[in-house]
Amino acid sequence: MSKYLITGFSGFVSRHFLQFLYDEHSGDEVYGIDLRKPPFDYESYQDKLAIQFKETNLLDIDRLREVFLAFKPDYILHLASFSSVAYSWKYPAESFTNNTDIFLKLLTVTRECVPKCRILSVGSSEEYGNVSTEDLPIKETVQLKPTSPYAVARISQEMLAKIYAERFGMDIILTRSFNHIGIWQDDRFVVPSFVKRIENLKKRGLTRGTIETGDISIIRDFVDVRDVVRAYYYLLHDGIKGEVYNVCSGKGISLEQILNTIADEMGVVVDHVVNPDYVRPDDNAIIIGDYCKIKEELGWEPTIDFTNSIKDIINNRL
Amino acid sequence: MSKYLITGFSGFVSRHFLQFLYDEHSGDEVYGIDLRKPPFDYESYQDKLAIQFKETNLLDIDRLREVFLAFKPDYILHLASFSSVAYSWKYPAESFTNNTDIFLKLLTVTRECVPKCRILSVGSSEEYGNVSTEDLPIKETVQLKPTSPYAVARISQEMLAKIYAERFGMDIILTRSFNHIGIWQDDRFVVPSFVKRIENLKKRGLTRGTIETGDISIIRDFVDVRDVVRAYYYLLHDGIKGEVYNVCSGKGISLEQILNTIADEMGVVVDHVVNPDYVRPDDNAIIIGDYCKIKEELGWEPTIDFTNSIKDIINNRL
Repeated sequence: MSKYLITGFSGFVSRHFLQFLYDEHSGDEVYGIDLRKPPFDYESYQDKLAIQFKETNLLDIDRLREVFLAFKPDYILHLASFSSVAYSWKYPAESFTNNTDIFLKLLTVTRECVPKCRILSVGSSEEYGNVSTEDLPIKETVQLKPTSPYAVARISQEMLAKIYAERFGMDIILTRSFNHIGIWQDDRFVVPSFVKRIENLKKRGLTRGTIETGDISIIRDFVDVRDVVRAYYYLLHDGIKGEVYNVCSGKGISLEQILNTIADEMGVVVDHVVNPDYVRPDDNAIIIGDYCKIKEELGWEPTIDFTNSIKDIINNRL
Repeated sequence: MSKYLITGFSGFVSRHFLQFLYDEHSGDEVYGIDLRKPPFDYESYQDKLAIQFKETNLLDIDRLREVFLAFKPDYILHLASFSSVAYSWKYPAESFTNNTDIFLKLLTVTRECVPKCRILSVGSSEEYGNVSTEDLPIKETVQLKPTSPYAVARISQEMLAKIYAERFGMDIILTRSFNHIGIWQDDRFVVPSFVKRIENLKKRGLTRGTIETGDISIIRDFVDVRDVVRAYYYLLHDGIKGEVYNVCSGKGISLEQILNTIADEMGVVVDHVVNPDYVRPDDNAIIIGDYCKIKEELGWEPTIDFTNSIKDIINNRL
């Protein structure tokens, strides 16, 4: 039986992690913390998992200390983050507060209260930034060339994790996680936003329609969130301290392919027009990760094809 | 005639920059800001320079805006920093606030009020961290492996400078500056602290004595602060936007050599004993910078030998 503290508990990755534990590791204990209450019914997992939740601001170190002393976690899954690139351009200092500072608070309290606790520090493929085509697929060793304050804050988090692991012997494992795809994701993300807009066409009785998009020629690496949480479980249990691991599908899919796949599955013909307001400046043409490291060290590899991910998302909304 | 805004105005580097302008560029205007009043008499430069000073917290963006709108600088020499590695281990979050956040505030107000103003963002050789001997002397292209929260905060500052230069066309030049040596430096730094302790031996009438030190076998790159401020002047006027430049002597000097040189100059025989409390963990054995880039691009090179720096420091205290 293991005890997991999950930060960013109210997000969709946390919900999938709970589902994974529920399906495969009944009897485990979970303590969730987040700024806001979960939008899902975590009580429904209580027949197989012992789950507590407490509204907690990670910047409130006294509250954090209470949580740690009460629960004494074996593992921390640190999902909390203000992860929007656009937000980080508007409020760059807040992007540091809500990525770097919250992580420092977490490290401080872990050292004080449960120094042997293992932490998974989740990072982002945004850290890679401007990647040359000869560096594709991206290995963990490539030089980081961030292009947003968010990415810089994430790199700081990662560098701090490494020096705390080195200096204090803290047990921290790191990821650079690529785009997630899966049910329960917020509608502001690209896949659910496409699905929602095509649903709206169908609701209006249309079998053909036009939607506005950004630049959908860009290619990204979408990994099913169920594969992601399995990777996090493996990393928490068997990852090598101080190491960084890509969590990705290893495949590049253009947003256009995604849009067309969704449209096909939903039986609608979709044309698109590019709205320049939706085009992000400095966006890389192609981002594809390499998952050799986590595969070789932990035997993890993605198992769910993106077409199946999309089918599941559509079916879940019916 | 140029208008310079200097942050960290009350520090010793700023004082040397004023001296440099006074000696070589009379008629220039300077507006100094700092948390604390300068410990030197800047009025004494007023016959050749127009100097104003205002106690200002860089986190106070409204105050900063007033300063910028009143002065409209052509150049910003951004020296302000909480630059202690030891402090950053005690207060890591504050290390970000007082390096990364103040820099973000400075960028924000510069963009708003004087978007064409050129900024010199001063960084630190601490950013290099763990350097392999085969990478000596250190070029700007070596991979950064920071070993303290201070170093991570400085790297963040540098990465932010680059992305703001890229995204908004801001005119920012960067340095990684190595250890400074020169008069007016605070006694807590290594060279003046050695001088002070040997002075104390002399005051007691001794011609031989013992002082406690940390590990004085470590080798560092000490560059005379008068060379440093000349480099900053060159960089402000002719540096290439978005580029990072080492400012260093290119020579390695052990702390033992420094101690012996000071002792010789002061006519005292000094023995030392290592106090383990003064030994810093994770300290690199050898740090030596490479100044080829700034030499090739701007013709700068160090001109003052470290023995002369030490003589000047001793003579200045007599």
